[in-house]
Amino acid sequence: MEIIDGNQVAAEIVAELKAEVAGTAGRKPCIALVRVGDDPASISYVKKKEKTAADIGIESRLIFPPVTITQDELCALIDTLNADATVDGILVQSPLPKGINEVAVFRRIAAEKDVDGFHTLNLGKLAQEDETGFVACTPAGIMELLQRAKVSLSGKHVVVLGRSLIVGKPAALLAVQRKQWANATVTICHSQTKDLPAITRQADVLIAAIGKAEFVTADMVKPGVVVIDVGVNRVPDATKKTGYRLTGDVHFPSVSPLCAKITPVPGGVGPMTVAMLMKNTVKAFRQNRAS
Amino acid sequence: MEIIDGNQVAAEIVAELKAEVAGTAGRKPCIALVRVGDDPASISYVKKKEKTAADIGIESRLIFPPVTITQDELCALIDTLNADATVDGILVQSPLPKGINEVAVFRRIAAEKDVDGFHTLNLGKLAQEDETGFVACTPAGIMELLQRAKVSLSGKHVVVLGRSLIVGKPAALLAVQRKQWANATVTICHSQTKDLPAITRQADVLIAAIGKAEFVTADMVKPGVVVIDVGVNRVPDATKKTGYRLTGDVHFPSVSPLCAKITPVPGGVGPMTVAMLMKNTVKAFRQNRAS
Repeated sequence: MEIIDGNQVAAEIVAELKAEVAGTAGRKPCIALVRVGDDPASISYVKKKEKTAADIGIESRLIFPPVTITQDELCALIDTLNADATVDGILVQSPLPKGINEVAVFRRIAAEKDVDGFHTLNLGKLAQEDETGFVACTPAGIMELLQRAKVSLSGKHVVVLGRSLIVGKPAALLAVQRKQWANATVTICHSQTKDLPAITRQADVLIAAIGKAEFVTADMVKPGVVVIDVGVNRVPDATKKTGYRLTGDVHFPSVSPLCAKITPVPGGVGPMTVAMLMKNTVKAFRQNRAS
Repeated sequence: MEIIDGNQVAAEIVAELKAEVAGTAGRKPCIALVRVGDDPASISYVKKKEKTAADIGIESRLIFPPVTITQDELCALIDTLNADATVDGILVQSPLPKGINEVAVFRRIAAEKDVDGFHTLNLGKLAQEDETGFVACTPAGIMELLQRAKVSLSGKHVVVLGRSLIVGKPAALLAVQRKQWANATVTICHSQTKDLPAITRQADVLIAAIGKAEFVTADMVKPGVVVIDVGVNRVPDATKKTGYRLTGDVHFPSVSPLCAKITPVPGGVGPMTVAMLMKNTVKAFRQNRAS
């Protein structure tokens, strides 16, 4: 059994992006990081993104409107960033305060600056296998992890557990694409699936993104499976200072011995999301300069 | 075994649309039917659409540019139709002459008038389960056929054979949606799938859209399956005046006795596409008036 080390793969990607940016003449790529209010988790996420951008040589434009900002004001702010030719990517940190329509805000971001890959047009491009679009960071990170772990999906049966818009569906659409490393037979299953273990046991590659702590148990996988665990769940744990521990959607102790490869939680898919956000930003920069 | 009669279901939909249009005050819905050149099949398809529109009370705006039209001229024509508030839907008949970029032309159509459902934004909305979008006529017709045949997909395993952009992928995205009649576990398989019969035999509902004549045989289905045959293939047949007969992707004589329900070819999915185009047009009209 081999552990797929997300921290290491993310570091490789960051190093590659750094080299690419160092090699470009003129202005550097720029990402606008919009954080509304002072939610502690959001502060920490945005700091991490800012730091990684700095490591690569990407400029961060930090915009921290107060929690009292209105929908119209936020949209006007996005319009300004959309119109600014020196801004390549725009990230609006989720969650937004109550009273703000998150979907409307995400759709307001110009599709060509939507480095989070949440825009309707980018989702459509994913289905169309149009490489000019941006893929959401978590599913893009999953594919990158698999590829760098030398797991080709071609001809394999990929089972995706979960049908969310930011993980399950895009991961399924990526895996079924007619291209190298993809080309899989794909099953999407979810909370309403009957006899789930019979389905997941068919998986050559199992992508668990159902949001239930340690949901996937040893009886649900076949020996030799590759498991990508997307879950990040807090489980009460009195032995920890915080009172909880982080766990994935997979019961690691019993499942991992059966796996050919598996991602741990933390340290698997998690670290990939910021790296993929940066990769999307450099791509947006490249396309912005070419247009 | 029950035959799902596409002609009858299509006629029901046409009758419902006719009643809805009769009940609306003011101008009637309008679809622009753009046919480039004089391809005999295209002439026949557009005639059928015009006739069904007339039956319902939908106005057809017929535009038949010559085969010599340039890409720019065709785009300018679409821009004019996009800007015309009295045009609710725009259909550009496929195939377009060589030298014209079909994808670029389809993307030029305003998403809110894209009654064919091919626009990137409408595909994204389908993935997002956004009901304001338009779903391509064949997959929309499949779901309508299943629903009217009282086949709920909830908790069922739907196997989609084929991953095309106009049938396989949208059908899979529809079947997995979190809504009544959908809510299925979905497997997408294709020409690269290994041990295909083992996958298709799991299907409670099998949607065959692989474009190979009589590809699905009795050993590939389980008894009690519901089969939707999307294929339209020409097979040489010396006993026919035309020299060929039409057949689906399913070997009907051997498969149909095993089925709970099955669509025939012709007379199954085929007749649904024009009915769904009209349904999309009336929806575009409704949304156009409300906006």
